[in-house]
Amino acid sequence: MAEPLFRRLALIGVGLIGRSVARVARARGNIAAEIVATARSEATRERVRELGLADRVVATAEEAVAGADCIMLCAPVGAYAALAQAIAPHLSPDAILTDVGSTKQSVIRDVGPLVPGGVHFVPAHPLAGTEHSGPDAGFAELFEGRWCLLTPPPGTDEAAVEKTAELWRRCGSMVTTMEPAHHDRVLAIVSHLPHLIAFTICGTADDLESQSREEVLQFAASGFRDFTRIAASDPVMWRDVFLNNREALLEMLARFMEDAQAMARAVRWGDGAYIEHRIERGRVIRRGLIERKQA
Amino acid sequence: MAEPLFRRLALIGVGLIGRSVARVARARGNIAAEIVATARSEATRERVRELGLADRVVATAEEAVAGADCIMLCAPVGAYAALAQAIAPHLSPDAILTDVGSTKQSVIRDVGPLVPGGVHFVPAHPLAGTEHSGPDAGFAELFEGRWCLLTPPPGTDEAAVEKTAELWRRCGSMVTTMEPAHHDRVLAIVSHLPHLIAFTICGTADDLESQSREEVLQFAASGFRDFTRIAASDPVMWRDVFLNNREALLEMLARFMEDAQAMARAVRWGDGAYIEHRIERGRVIRRGLIERKQA
Repeated sequence: MAEPLFRRLALIGVGLIGRSVARVARARGNIAAEIVATARSEATRERVRELGLADRVVATAEEAVAGADCIMLCAPVGAYAALAQAIAPHLSPDAILTDVGSTKQSVIRDVGPLVPGGVHFVPAHPLAGTEHSGPDAGFAELFEGRWCLLTPPPGTDEAAVEKTAELWRRCGSMVTTMEPAHHDRVLAIVSHLPHLIAFTICGTADDLESQSREEVLQFAASGFRDFTRIAASDPVMWRDVFLNNREALLEMLARFMEDAQAMARAVRWGDGAYIEHRIERGRVIRRGLIERKQA
Repeated sequence: MAEPLFRRLALIGVGLIGRSVARVARARGNIAAEIVATARSEATRERVRELGLADRVVATAEEAVAGADCIMLCAPVGAYAALAQAIAPHLSPDAILTDVGSTKQSVIRDVGPLVPGGVHFVPAHPLAGTEHSGPDAGFAELFEGRWCLLTPPPGTDEAAVEKTAELWRRCGSMVTTMEPAHHDRVLAIVSHLPHLIAFTICGTADDLESQSREEVLQFAASGFRDFTRIAASDPVMWRDVFLNNREALLEMLARFMEDAQAMARAVRWGDGAYIEHRIERGRVIRRGLIERKQA
């Protein structure tokens, strides 16, 4: 077994991602010699203790980061600015500060200016996650075969980037770097917009007069079921993602709405050729996914 | 084993649904003593012969219905009017004419007036289906535990409705009757709109400039993957569904678009409470589905 990458890994937040990182670090043994975890609520901290996910569970982020050579922010991205403010004075020189947030420009905007000289800031985004959240979610295989995108700001220490990449490779991920603005645009279309749409259509159904609503639940065909699977995700996490990737999300939503209006128009005027053509394009994308073994 | 319900079942069209009905009728043995099938293309007919799914495979719908006491239309709903025209003179007195289409008002509009006196017209819609279509799709378990909705027009012979219900029960389905307009409204929100949205967002992604499109495929997170799963369905079938449930689909789409615009506005103006509240409603619907064991 290889030497652990880090002496002490501090996990700030233990939702699905933080917990899964703890589990894989435990299982592999070559990521960190010691795991320190913290969570905002005492109930979550207690559960992490019960599950034995960390060597130490502490009450505050300040305590958690003290003496750690790798600090990973695993909280909703809307909490990063306050967290960075709190931990900055307690970070060890030469430590790597990284995160797992789904928006990267906002993270660099909120955290970047607060990082003390000598600390290496390497924003990261593991493309993993299920509709499950909360204390008992999380499993060691979550990152297996999935991408982790690193978005280091210009001038970031290359050894720190490589060490962060190695952390994710040891979690089972494939790693690549990406420009932060480009990351936010790609994620807007592959993840943020689909989630916004799924949340919205569930609300639309829920607004129907009560008899129809009951039947929506009873007869939910596969189409709607897939949407509710997405829509069962954590509200605070997703609220923060939407608010922190506003520009790219609104652009993709605007494009989608134009396309949906064009479909509505084709349905209204009976333009079968247009509809068929648009449906056919979905199959092209699908085939592309299968070829890339992502399906 | 119970006596077969029908002497001769004629399947007009052998896509996913027709083929699965053939398989379950073969497997159970208590649905029809003889299965006759037809399809528009010679290639499909040949494949049905190879797979041994029917006792006889014939070239035309007219031949298929001759002497059958149950005729099931399993073609895209846009083809029903022409099919009904073609088969009407060849239907046996007292035969049951049924179908599996996803829109019911249009089927009653297109087929109803052409049904000869003495023939019982019992429209039906099995809520089953996957993203697979074409010659080799179809399996005997497709209808197991799923709903089949019957929408008999007023005055339909009750024994014929009961016999059609029994056919679907023997396929493993739960059966209920529904008013046709209400069926179309419920299906618009649980199935037709989700498919329209999924097809649309795949097109939106496909329209992105080529570099982003490549990365959409590479980094497709779970949200987008679920959409492409839906979007891989048969273009002609779905084109016909959209065009034949126009009113209900456009109404549900308009409601959805209003709700999506409200989300966009909340994202633009940073209204976190609104966003969180809307996301929370998705979870309510999700819990409702789980309670009904449909999830």
